[in-house]
Amino acid sequence: MRRSELSIESRQRNEFIKLDAHVAKAIADSGVQDGLCHVFVLHTTAGVTINEGADPSVMHDIGTKLAELAPREGRYAHADAERNADSHIKAALVGSSVTVPVRKGAPVLGTWQSIFLCEFDGPRRRQVVISVIAG
Amino acid sequence: MRRSELSIESRQRNEFIKLDAHVAKAIADSGVQDGLCHVFVLHTTAGVTINEGADPSVMHDIGTKLAELAPREGRYAHADAERNADSHIKAALVGSSVTVPVRKGAPVLGTWQSIFLCEFDGPRRRQVVISVIAG
Amino acid sequence: MRRSELSIESRQRNEFIKLDAHVAKAIADSGVQDGLCHVFVLHTTAGVTINEGADPSVMHDIGTKLAELAPREGRYAHADAERNADSHIKAALVGSSVTVPVRKGAPVLGTWQSIFLCEFDGPRRRQVVISVIAG
Repeated sequence: MRRSELSIESRQRNEFIKLDAHVAKAIADSGVQDGLCHVFVLHTTAGVTINEGADPSVMHDIGTKLAELAPREGRYAHADAERNADSHIKAALVGSSVTVPVRKGAPVLGTWQSIFLCEFDGPRRRQVVISVIAG
Repeated sequence: MRRSELSIESRQRNEFIKLDAHVAKAIADSGVQDGLCHVFVLHTTAGVTINEGADPSVMHDIGTKLAELAPREGRYAHADAERNADSHIKAALVGSSVTVPVRKGAPVLGTWQSIFLCEFDGPRRRQVVISVIAG
Repeated sequence: MRRSELSIESRQRNEFIKLDAHVAKAIADSGVQDGLCHVFVLHTTAGVTINEGADPSVMHDIGTKLAELAPREGRYAHADAERNADSHIKAALVGSSVTVPVRKGAPVLGTWQSIFLCEFDGPRRRQVVISVIAG
């Protein structure tokens, strides 16, 4: 078992940041050949998801749909100075972690799959914990 | 590997119940210092999620949004005596488990993160299985 | 740790395919008595979820609601020849993997729970990776 912590800086309020290289490095550094890799964000207004990494328009559409389902302006109880109820809702829909298989010291992903940190209330610095567990 | 089973009683149809103390205890009892903890609900009209535990208005907003996306009254095929198609849909959106890292015999969570059992068809007694796996 | 790969053929654009028997076999074949089982789809227009396996009207309602939240025809940036922005969005909402406990060489599931491959852009052949990790 090896654990890495990343500190990722987002630049926009809503942004999807590819973590593939970080995850591949964490697995390589761990020395684990076969097992599982868990990628977890330590925040409640951000998420982690897997989707298409080749055509950026896919993540754009996902972001647009999430903003349509949970618009920033709405009747929210959590109407504090941050006005980020929408960010918490998006995080709940997307989830705060993903787990992927590890084989031959690398993540097992499909041709089009990338792992994304989902920023829903940036710009901010975000902590991501990557745990690699041997099978 | 150590496994705990919780039996949690909900009191409302829709309710978010904090599991943090149960999860921390299950990890402490397991003796596992480093690894992963998987929290899983054995039902199809309930879920498990991670979001803000400090300000209850956040979970309130998440519940309100889920009820807006999947209202109880709607044109559902699953229109049985229970009228709980909405509960199944909410469970599908939120998911039935979360996994968190374990470090020094404790869950690794961000400052604002809590683990919630999501009751979508209560009041009921719900079974939650916590598995702690060493790295 | 043992890993299985399934190749599943879907027959409709949107379809939920029960994986229970495949998952039970993968666990039995692994020889693992206690641990966790991770079920992961290697595609970005498909997902994996757990919900009711007894009454098919439940999954029908979930599919109908997802189509309502992300209709095929919409203003999407990813408007390529495949017209499948909706499929990517549904995959993001549902997630690409589930993890379930393993006990006595079998998956731990509630009475009504089944594991489903969620096809959102079929008919196609889909690859599913099942990893069984001992505790």
